[in-house]
Amino acid sequence: MRIGSSIAFSQPHSLYSFASIVGQKEGEGPMKNYFDKIEADPTFGEKNWEKAESRLQSDTFALALQKGRLQQIDIDCIVAGDLINQCTGSSFAVRETKIPYLGVYGACSTMAESLLIAGMLIDGGFSGKSAAVTSSHFSTAERQFRFPLSYGGQRTPTAQWTCTASGAAVVSSEGGAPFIMGGCIGKIADLGVTDTSNMGAAMAPAAADTIMRYLQDTQTNPEDYDAIVTGDLGNIGSPLLIDLLLKQGINITAQHQDCGSLMFDEQKQDTHAGGSGCGCSASILCGYYLPKLQNNEFRKILFAATGALLSAMSPQQGESIPSICHLVEIRSQEGLAC
Amino acid sequence: MRIGSSIAFSQPHSLYSFASIVGQKEGEGPMKNYFDKIEADPTFGEKNWEKAESRLQSDTFALALQKGRLQQIDIDCIVAGDLINQCTGSSFAVRETKIPYLGVYGACSTMAESLLIAGMLIDGGFSGKSAAVTSSHFSTAERQFRFPLSYGGQRTPTAQWTCTASGAAVVSSEGGAPFIMGGCIGKIADLGVTDTSNMGAAMAPAAADTIMRYLQDTQTNPEDYDAIVTGDLGNIGSPLLIDLLLKQGINITAQHQDCGSLMFDEQKQDTHAGGSGCGCSASILCGYYLPKLQNNEFRKILFAATGALLSAMSPQQGESIPSICHLVEIRSQEGLAC
Repeated sequence: MRIGSSIAFSQPHSLYSFASIVGQKEGEGPMKNYFDKIEADPTFGEKNWEKAESRLQSDTFALALQKGRLQQIDIDCIVAGDLINQCTGSSFAVRETKIPYLGVYGACSTMAESLLIAGMLIDGGFSGKSAAVTSSHFSTAERQFRFPLSYGGQRTPTAQWTCTASGAAVVSSEGGAPFIMGGCIGKIADLGVTDTSNMGAAMAPAAADTIMRYLQDTQTNPEDYDAIVTGDLGNIGSPLLIDLLLKQGINITAQHQDCGSLMFDEQKQDTHAGGSGCGCSASILCGYYLPKLQNNEFRKILFAATGALLSAMSPQQGESIPSICHLVEIRSQEGLAC
Repeated sequence: MRIGSSIAFSQPHSLYSFASIVGQKEGEGPMKNYFDKIEADPTFGEKNWEKAESRLQSDTFALALQKGRLQQIDIDCIVAGDLINQCTGSSFAVRETKIPYLGVYGACSTMAESLLIAGMLIDGGFSGKSAAVTSSHFSTAERQFRFPLSYGGQRTPTAQWTCTASGAAVVSSEGGAPFIMGGCIGKIADLGVTDTSNMGAAMAPAAADTIMRYLQDTQTNPEDYDAIVTGDLGNIGSPLLIDLLLKQGINITAQHQDCGSLMFDEQKQDTHAGGSGCGCSASILCGYYLPKLQNNEFRKILFAATGALLSAMSPQQGESIPSICHLVEIRSQEGLAC
């Protein structure tokens, strides 16, 4: 069902099983106790960074299946994407399966976009179980978007750290909490930010637009949610989001949490403005929030993942950074009754 | 509804309006009389090739709206993608609108993938009208995947020519023929082809798998369709597809047509194995097939767009080429009764 510009599924759909795997640095941050697995080897046993990211993603998907006692044949479709050119992180990971595949690109908003599309597959009866999967890897992102690692370039204080991380969640027509209820497809926002080392500032307006539209469409208030979680605005973008919404009369200060800010200890880990990458919000969703929704510690959350839709070339051509934010609402068993 | 591993929408959904724009070379080929517009200026009035492709895509979307007497506000979501790194061809085109956006990546299969997702948006009642849009540009693809144009590299006989072309179609809950009925989400096939100048060979197995699954799931035969249209197998991949299906006892010789082979006159235009690029099959679908379905010249077709999911880097890392084929079934008004 359509509500304004938002989406409500015809019934709640189970997030049947889910998993998160992260790299060593992510496994040393404040979230370290929540991930299913911390992998010390950044190559994940592979010969290059790109294959490493594919291995990370396919391992995370396999772990989500294992945790749900599922097999590949139980999954009708994988909806996946990543930051690597032509989304090869995902396509080479999915290649190992015989599962139908919808490739998506939403930069760091990919997990929310994938969950929305997987939810539509379930809602329309096109699938019994479909998976939303995404990943990022520090080293694939650095060499693609920035500098050779050995160059040792200085990072600005506003820069975020691309996480080596992956999250996978199986959406199912049957099963228990947590439940995906619907959400909001993002619009592109671009207020002219051209600093590629300040993605948080570029993405905050997109998050504000999507969250505001969803609250309006569902006639809900921030207090109706235990958490309004953004993906990867980091320590610079997060206060900007709160300011932008305050100017619209919406105060999310008490509910707002950001995956980019949660991932690292800024002081101890020298990560500057926080984490980023498709895998950042995906791993924190699957590692931290979904288990807490499973045991009713949270009852209702909004997961609003943000993405910066630039390429390595577009800023060199004088372009500003188009950004987007896709949102999904997730509830616990108790949350269904609220 | 799910039928085996295929998808059937709960009712036929209208392809309400559609448009195609191509470049000069495409406008000199056998399809020249079918496109809405042929643009002689390869820059489309922009400063660089990437902006040119975005302009081509946004112009094509605008033309689809105009032909349907629609405005941007009538469209609930744009589902779009392209070949440029991080899909900036699409995101910079969509940025000019205020329309929610789902970015997808399926390489040259993108039009079929976008139509399937747009169809699901309509089928679930999440949207009244959504657009599927894609593009490719010879010059953005050449400099990203191959060599600088001024290098003057020789192309092999198996190489395909990336088309400067775009197609846009509005899927709608209301309206007349042609109608999208459902389809089949592709699985990745990779038989080990490593020659990036022979995409047709790499993609043929993916097309065979998807077409075979759809025929089996719907219990139909090739003769039930006026055309089984593949996207961009070209002159090398097309006979391979027919052979692969013949080995499975399926003969599509009479029904098979390929957008890559249709686009150019191989002898006169020096394009070798045919056209390719997201815009190739999209522009031929929107320019040639959909009008013929509108006037019942065709009654039922399968549109099976194929994509090679490699990056410029993956073959250098010794990888073979993962390929995919997404399929949609489209019918005319008379086709509904068949």
